[in-house]
Amino acid sequence: MALEVVDINCDMGEAFGRWHVGDTDDASLMGYISSANIAAGFHAGDPNLMDQTVRLAVEHGVGIGAHPGYNDLQGFGRRRINGTSRELVNDIAYQVGALREFARRHGARLQHIKPHGALYMEMAVNPDFAQQFITYMRTVAPNAFVFCMAGSATERAAQEAGQPAIREFYADRDYDESGSIVFTRDAGRPDPAAIARKVVRACVEGRVTAVTGHDIEVPFESICFHSDTLGALDIVRHMRDALRAEGIRIAPVSEIVKV
Amino acid sequence: MALEVVDINCDMGEAFGRWHVGDTDDASLMGYISSANIAAGFHAGDPNLMDQTVRLAVEHGVGIGAHPGYNDLQGFGRRRINGTSRELVNDIAYQVGALREFARRHGARLQHIKPHGALYMEMAVNPDFAQQFITYMRTVAPNAFVFCMAGSATERAAQEAGQPAIREFYADRDYDESGSIVFTRDAGRPDPAAIARKVVRACVEGRVTAVTGHDIEVPFESICFHSDTLGALDIVRHMRDALRAEGIRIAPVSEIVKV
Amino acid sequence: MALEVVDINCDMGEAFGRWHVGDTDDASLMGYISSANIAAGFHAGDPNLMDQTVRLAVEHGVGIGAHPGYNDLQGFGRRRINGTSRELVNDIAYQVGALREFARRHGARLQHIKPHGALYMEMAVNPDFAQQFITYMRTVAPNAFVFCMAGSATERAAQEAGQPAIREFYADRDYDESGSIVFTRDAGRPDPAAIARKVVRACVEGRVTAVTGHDIEVPFESICFHSDTLGALDIVRHMRDALRAEGIRIAPVSEIVKV
Amino acid sequence: MALEVVDINCDMGEAFGRWHVGDTDDASLMGYISSANIAAGFHAGDPNLMDQTVRLAVEHGVGIGAHPGYNDLQGFGRRRINGTSRELVNDIAYQVGALREFARRHGARLQHIKPHGALYMEMAVNPDFAQQFITYMRTVAPNAFVFCMAGSATERAAQEAGQPAIREFYADRDYDESGSIVFTRDAGRPDPAAIARKVVRACVEGRVTAVTGHDIEVPFESICFHSDTLGALDIVRHMRDALRAEGIRIAPVSEIVKV
Repeated sequence: MALEVVDINCDMGEAFGRWHVGDTDDASLMGYISSANIAAGFHAGDPNLMDQTVRLAVEHGVGIGAHPGYNDLQGFGRRRINGTSRELVNDIAYQVGALREFARRHGARLQHIKPHGALYMEMAVNPDFAQQFITYMRTVAPNAFVFCMAGSATERAAQEAGQPAIREFYADRDYDESGSIVFTRDAGRPDPAAIARKVVRACVEGRVTAVTGHDIEVPFESICFHSDTLGALDIVRHMRDALRAEGIRIAPVSEIVKV
Repeated sequence: MALEVVDINCDMGEAFGRWHVGDTDDASLMGYISSANIAAGFHAGDPNLMDQTVRLAVEHGVGIGAHPGYNDLQGFGRRRINGTSRELVNDIAYQVGALREFARRHGARLQHIKPHGALYMEMAVNPDFAQQFITYMRTVAPNAFVFCMAGSATERAAQEAGQPAIREFYADRDYDESGSIVFTRDAGRPDPAAIARKVVRACVEGRVTAVTGHDIEVPFESICFHSDTLGALDIVRHMRDALRAEGIRIAPVSEIVKV
Repeated sequence: MALEVVDINCDMGEAFGRWHVGDTDDASLMGYISSANIAAGFHAGDPNLMDQTVRLAVEHGVGIGAHPGYNDLQGFGRRRINGTSRELVNDIAYQVGALREFARRHGARLQHIKPHGALYMEMAVNPDFAQQFITYMRTVAPNAFVFCMAGSATERAAQEAGQPAIREFYADRDYDESGSIVFTRDAGRPDPAAIARKVVRACVEGRVTAVTGHDIEVPFESICFHSDTLGALDIVRHMRDALRAEGIRIAPVSEIVKV
Repeated sequence: MALEVVDINCDMGEAFGRWHVGDTDDASLMGYISSANIAAGFHAGDPNLMDQTVRLAVEHGVGIGAHPGYNDLQGFGRRRINGTSRELVNDIAYQVGALREFARRHGARLQHIKPHGALYMEMAVNPDFAQQFITYMRTVAPNAFVFCMAGSATERAAQEAGQPAIREFYADRDYDESGSIVFTRDAGRPDPAAIARKVVRACVEGRVTAVTGHDIEVPFESICFHSDTLGALDIVRHMRDALRAEGIRIAPVSEIVKV
């Protein structure tokens, strides 16, 4: 069943102080995406950058998401830290609150929360953590979306509790046969045209080829790619053009799914 | 002109991870104060502690304040960092947002913001920083109080912009003749009875004796003492008993001043 | 085969900035131990404290050890972070170098290295990490001791490479039947007399009772206890008195084992 | 009096985790300089990068210097923190020790210490801090050079104590009439040809034109430029070619000045 409209989400504001990563600036990318996952200081992002990134997203009509990560600037949030569920949810609450303050300052609201990197992967396989996180969302952000992988503990916890969930398709990551992405700390420089074909096929057929060579089903409402993947701007341009050529509209999830 | 009611505010949640400071625990102090300035992670405080401290304040009916500081755990926020006004206000917004998230989680609202330590002192003498901070408050927290020293740049900026301000009397700090407190990184162990006398006199006569030996006027609505001052619990007990003996009621500023 | 002489090692300098942990100060403990594992800034310890703790150890004739941990102040180094072996060894080298600089300043040399908390446990079970760490020690500190558990990957890597290793007996931790300690983030307040009996028996008989109730063999040259265990001063006093009553001498490992 | 040989020093390893700054990589720059000031973790630099940068310097025969900064990743060490002299010297000792460990690992010795950014400027005007720092160097690194501005408190403290000092000429900074550089947090993109002319004139005539338009005397043994200045590679290429054209040799200070 083909998608008529899809969201494109991307991690944004993942620099720190004077430093940046990747070869693409957020100001260029912002024109091509519909939802931004904005780093909130633990794996990347500092208060000045958060303020600037939220303003940029608001100016482009891009949906604003909090992108909390493990407290690990050196590892860019891509190294697991075995905190308790309670500790991890408190770390998330801290970062989400900080991000919301900048959204409030620029007259915007929180569209979604998407944990970053290894924290996202941990929640996907840790039901206790997923449930405690969703309980937190029910309390403080009952109408915000949680972004997750189809079939993950995160999705199940959201469904059980009635928290609106958005499933993602990962444009610049590989899939294993279980439907989980193959986690990597570094994605290299993928081919934009190949990614565009993969994305269009996923939108039209609902399928992707796993690393084993077999096709798997991938239900989703949002396409994810990473701003620190080399060639990110080329990737999103190819992707957007290919989607439009197929007649698929791009819009923030808040316009696609009504809560 | 004697005060009939006064607020007592105290810094709370100024531990970190497994560590603590001072000889008094917050759970004991919380029963004696009416407003809590809750550390928000930059000079002290971590997400787990913030969650716990906010809950404790809510249980005691204590007004919840954000207590943002310089980004300096090692120096406990008592060392000046010469960031720009824009950087410092963004650092404050980040911390206030984080604290608000825990308030929201526990069904409370933000009563006030009080910068910590050297950041409080910097704002008191830096009109540009004070104005940018107050502009931020007008935008995101127009009904929250800012805690400040009488005569400070902070108070002037609040008055000009119409932001509700609360002036403080510092129970465990010395005053110079200008009405400014004498900043210290370590207050030693002051005498609780002497502090109680000083506080009652300030409430009744509106005066305090400066380090020079001369009396100065000290207009205020809230009494401040520090949880890391040695003997903090004794100090607040003496203070409360002395105030009650004088017929002065203790209440959060949100009950004293109507916005 | 009973020990005639044994080392007592303890984690030292595990405070940070204005904060401390536990109910015992290092200056008191230093008189009862023979080797100090000095925190080096990642899980605890700051440069001022490191300088002061090294000086204190030198004054007491206590052997100086570097005590590197995971980069996690909030978790006190008791949460695993899945960095690569190369990352973890570089983190260790950084901390060891910093600690050595203070030793050099106070005219002392590095007696040993003992990883802290979860990093110690990780090395015990991760042969690749253990080997890369020992390779680093062979290069920069060929005569320094590595402290480890008997039977651990750390001990095996040291033996294979010829790096001098010291096996520890954990006074305030429980053992499982494999001879590994049961890792905990919080040890509670154990009974000093029971610990003293356990330690003396271990020294005399070379045995300890595991959590399963069965006795296991525990070969060791050094007894470890933790300064953040509640009642640490009582624990070490009981332990020392009991060892002396048994005629067992206490000395730094550099006096027990000749390299 | 014209220089026949001069050192070129540059800040190196000033990235962090996945991030970098400027448009030039250290591997390219390393071939053009003779001394490297290697960031040591407080304002920039992480253990992995320090290891890699030291190895790179060793491979190129470049003199290895520690480049300690204020503890402020967000501000890149270009914001003053008003710690005490004792605190700041301990922070420096920590970083120098960490850097030395990597030098030891790669078979090199510490050639020099050069404080970074605002810490360098603070030491230049703070005699107490300068003296405490030089006392530390006398104790732990009596033969290492301290890099400083001519006429600074740092130079005076070094001279009085007999610590070998190297005076710098700042290629990519402006001078005021006192001979001090005009501190900036961001140098923009200067003209490489103009810099090369300025440097050659300083080497040949010992003079530079201050921002006021008047010439001042600038005695020095080493030329400094910054790897985060835009166009850094072009700057050093022009500079090197211009120096060679003038017959001026480039060498590490350890080959120019004998201790």
